[in-house]
Amino acid sequence: MGKLKMYTDRMSQPSRAVLIFCRVNGIDFEEIKVDISKGHHLTPDFTEVNPLQKVPAIVHGNLKLSESHAILVYLASAFTGIADHWYPTELSRRAKINSVMDWHHSNLRNGAVNYVIHTTLAPALGRQLNPKAAIEAEKVLLSSLKALEDFWLNGDDGGFLCDNTQPSVADLSMVCELMQLEVLDERDRSRILSPYKKVLQWIENTRTATNPHFEEVHNILYRVKKKLEQQRARTAETGTDPSNRMGGPSKI
Amino acid sequence: MGKLKMYTDRMSQPSRAVLIFCRVNGIDFEEIKVDISKGHHLTPDFTEVNPLQKVPAIVHGNLKLSESHAILVYLASAFTGIADHWYPTELSRRAKINSVMDWHHSNLRNGAVNYVIHTTLAPALGRQLNPKAAIEAEKVLLSSLKALEDFWLNGDDGGFLCDNTQPSVADLSMVCELMQLEVLDERDRSRILSPYKKVLQWIENTRTATNPHFEEVHNILYRVKKKLEQQRARTAETGTDPSNRMGGPSKI
Repeated sequence: MGKLKMYTDRMSQPSRAVLIFCRVNGIDFEEIKVDISKGHHLTPDFTEVNPLQKVPAIVHGNLKLSESHAILVYLASAFTGIADHWYPTELSRRAKINSVMDWHHSNLRNGAVNYVIHTTLAPALGRQLNPKAAIEAEKVLLSSLKALEDFWLNGDDGGFLCDNTQPSVADLSMVCELMQLEVLDERDRSRILSPYKKVLQWIENTRTATNPHFEEVHNILYRVKKKLEQQRARTAETGTDPSNRMGGPSKI
Repeated sequence: MGKLKMYTDRMSQPSRAVLIFCRVNGIDFEEIKVDISKGHHLTPDFTEVNPLQKVPAIVHGNLKLSESHAILVYLASAFTGIADHWYPTELSRRAKINSVMDWHHSNLRNGAVNYVIHTTLAPALGRQLNPKAAIEAEKVLLSSLKALEDFWLNGDDGGFLCDNTQPSVADLSMVCELMQLEVLDERDRSRILSPYKKVLQWIENTRTATNPHFEEVHNILYRVKKKLEQQRARTAETGTDPSNRMGGPSKI
């Protein structure tokens, strides 16, 4: 079987999750960059890999696979030497991990990705900011954070989802999702996250458990954060609308 | 381990999927009805079972589990004698099943459930119909049907998702999702589904493979369909807005 090929855009949080998983677990792979802001996901070459034109996607031998959760679960099973805590073999523990990952799609992911796009990243994707959609997304994001705090992280201080004491693929996926809030205005990010103490601690636990790879893969996000902070500072000085200053999709 | 308890509302398509799975596979269970239209999912008794207040949920021994995909995967693994095609043990085949189930959440489910609620079922849930949200949902639904037709069902005529010749948990989940379109006005349902010949054939394949349980569990939906048809006929005669005629949440 040939070397694992991973088609990713590090600006996509599910891409970051699968990259960190491979790095942490010493899986040998070739990273093929698919820059969504430049439309690389729409090229014939990438469409051959994933006809649905989404990242991340992998090719491993004859298998072409998309959807980050399916990829994480496959990698945890297909490669030897992956510690059991990433995707426990015991059925009840595995079932809880599957449950929180299923819940994620229409809740945390839905809320976080739409909030960040409609308040911040839309201009970089060639779209208009949409305050009304942002309000709807914020409702979903806040109810998801409450469910994380009160239910999914409400164990005996295991420090990870579903009362685990070590991270699973679910922790990695969902913390990467929340990391995109880094690009928000810092006061807004703090307003949203600060009431959720267990969530904040869980982000740190996952970061610590997967460093230095976690920080290395998130570097691109920190660069965008810095650039957006500079734009906001200039806007505060000049009073110009930041959505007009960001220009085209390749500017950040 | 005690008898499996399944908390379900047959008006919920994920509930129907898990019920049909158990019936087809001869899994012994107790069905506990949770009538969402009457708010039974918000009671302290059910909140004890699932703090997230969603159906379906199961209790099996010490395990409390929600999210229909996680439940289906757990049942396929925890009970003996379940045929391998429902959740293949071979890693690549299992990975594809996981992939289409992950894709489902933000695509087919998102489109179908929102289209049906915003065009038809909102009054029965004590909400207003929302034509603008219905337009957005229709876009997601149609692009999902196209992805099903052109990609997920585009194998060598296996007749099921991911080129399988027998149904998996993914087929059951996603066909149950599409079955909710039965409650639409028949011309509208036909307008939406008729261009997708493979999808139509796949619905029939899944129905045939899981009958008589498929039809028995869907009976509640057919009764609602008939009631809505009668309401539409009366509205056509009198010109009254059907959303006003349906009254409260318990009327259908």
